[in-house]
Amino acid sequence: MSKISDLDTPAVLIDLDRVEANLKRAQDYADSHGLKLRPHIKTHKLPRFARLAMDLGAVGITVQKLGEAEVMADSGITEIFLPYNILGSAKLARLKALHERVHITVTADSAQTVAGLSATFADAAEPLTVLVECDTGMGRCGVQSPEAALALAQTIAASPGLVFGGLMTYPAAGQVEANQAFLSAAQDALIAADLAPTIISNGGTPDLWRAHEVTAATEHRPGTYIYMDRFQVSKDVGGFDDCALTVLATIVSRPTDDRAIIDAGSKALTSDTLGMDGFGLIEEYPEARIVGLSEEHGTIDLSACTDKPQFGDTVRIIPNHACVVSNLFDHVTLISGDDVVETVAVGARGRVG
Amino acid sequence: MSKISDLDTPAVLIDLDRVEANLKRAQDYADSHGLKLRPHIKTHKLPRFARLAMDLGAVGITVQKLGEAEVMADSGITEIFLPYNILGSAKLARLKALHERVHITVTADSAQTVAGLSATFADAAEPLTVLVECDTGMGRCGVQSPEAALALAQTIAASPGLVFGGLMTYPAAGQVEANQAFLSAAQDALIAADLAPTIISNGGTPDLWRAHEVTAATEHRPGTYIYMDRFQVSKDVGGFDDCALTVLATIVSRPTDDRAIIDAGSKALTSDTLGMDGFGLIEEYPEARIVGLSEEHGTIDLSACTDKPQFGDTVRIIPNHACVVSNLFDHVTLISGDDVVETVAVGARGRVG
Repeated sequence: MSKISDLDTPAVLIDLDRVEANLKRAQDYADSHGLKLRPHIKTHKLPRFARLAMDLGAVGITVQKLGEAEVMADSGITEIFLPYNILGSAKLARLKALHERVHITVTADSAQTVAGLSATFADAAEPLTVLVECDTGMGRCGVQSPEAALALAQTIAASPGLVFGGLMTYPAAGQVEANQAFLSAAQDALIAADLAPTIISNGGTPDLWRAHEVTAATEHRPGTYIYMDRFQVSKDVGGFDDCALTVLATIVSRPTDDRAIIDAGSKALTSDTLGMDGFGLIEEYPEARIVGLSEEHGTIDLSACTDKPQFGDTVRIIPNHACVVSNLFDHVTLISGDDVVETVAVGARGRVG
Repeated sequence: MSKISDLDTPAVLIDLDRVEANLKRAQDYADSHGLKLRPHIKTHKLPRFARLAMDLGAVGITVQKLGEAEVMADSGITEIFLPYNILGSAKLARLKALHERVHITVTADSAQTVAGLSATFADAAEPLTVLVECDTGMGRCGVQSPEAALALAQTIAASPGLVFGGLMTYPAAGQVEANQAFLSAAQDALIAADLAPTIISNGGTPDLWRAHEVTAATEHRPGTYIYMDRFQVSKDVGGFDDCALTVLATIVSRPTDDRAIIDAGSKALTSDTLGMDGFGLIEEYPEARIVGLSEEHGTIDLSACTDKPQFGDTVRIIPNHACVVSNLFDHVTLISGDDVVETVAVGARGRVG
């Protein structure tokens, strides 16, 4: 069996033991609170990890675009949630084709989206289940009030080919109370209107361990939790020892005593800072700071390090944001300890829509 | 012939007329100053544009990693400059294989890099040409002084299998005088030591139109100039009318009067701000601000707009940084005016090293 030290760089390493521990920890937490998990696969885009999460107890998976749904359906997964406004003839046709072979559910936040879905599914053998997306504080998509949620639910329920399935939100991190207040009010209004929601779907890794406080929710959709990353650690969602995705890089230059250059730049680590200082944590040199990224170079300030990496050394970097890193690479390498288990294609990356 | 309006979103559009105009403008400028151009293909990663630049007069192309060099060599390009420290047995073997079929030149900034190259090429039929990378102010790779450049040139010249070819720098933007001073001093030292450099290679689009002020340089390596982007426009290197790469996106949500959501997020536009406000310019709504990116959503503030986009409208976005956008997509669509010419694979993306 080959070792990590045999790999060429830059490479994305995925620690299988940590992946499994992260999935189990979240499933155990959800089970203990009677909450369902519908994990988001945008982070890894790998059918095998989608299946692993379901084997551990997830009720289905979440995807963020049709291309991801198609790859997951091809791999045999049949319970797929796509919380996105699907519009336009090309995408609606793809959605309809998916609906004929798997159980796929979508969201809408406007009457226009609902109208497009209804026109497409009016003649379908089985109706399409549509949830109302609610903006409970994130400031992205979503209806703006519980009253608007009820109104759109009524529109869905009255639309040929569609079934109203419930509510969905991607909440603002840390705003647990506001999220609960919105969802609970919308739930009450729906029940009063005889449209009791089957699903109330909450999301996000930052507030994963507070998911049970949103008592209106029936399920949670964490994504990054499978890999964790420097941002989630900064939010105390996990520790660096839980981070399953690392970028393996080589020190290709040591121009000065305090400067090292690695062969991983913005085309490997991405420029996502998520408000943090620097572009990742170097596991072997935690005092080092990745202060700059060119496209194929990372610039490291070693001035705070007592021990310093030398030319030709390899290092492993926990990126700020794991999801955007795995989206950059055609392949990732699965590891266990220092062993290389397998290099696999990132099945669902690079898809248009 | 299909039209842009027939395309699904998000999509990367490349305006062929602007590409050709940008390449010609730079070649004419270089010709008028007796400067050679060796364009950097990292921006587009497309063999056809590499060939187009050479047809217009470029002396060769520049690549940033072996994977790009291999794709370009496969397409028939035989004059390739790879300004990177190549080390490690896997990459050195790939470099040697490339050297057997094309004229490839590399850089080094340390005796260790030179030693690895020499050990690999000592038995080669033809020696490998190596340039000394100089840090003339960028603070990335490179020897730190003209004296160090001379010393490393002497090491290269004394190494079996290698030929000293000259100097290379990627300078700090705006520091034209410091760049010229370093290169000129190094050139003088090399001439005095009977190691006159054949090539002195300067780079970058930000100071492209000042390249002739670096009189020590024999050539320039611009990259982004082929597409231009919002950052280059902010530096007055070109205008928005010169920007050849745009991201086509759809308004998928209009949650409030002042907010629109597009189906292009950080996995399409990237989080690169390069110090600017927002994540790109919307051509049709220049007063709009792209204030936030999730992975598959972009959040737009319309409060400064008199005219506002509606649900389902498509918009074209000039990204902050074109190079990292084309790296995210497996395919780009070539256009001329409103016509779709062809959708092509981004040949050299997704390569490891």
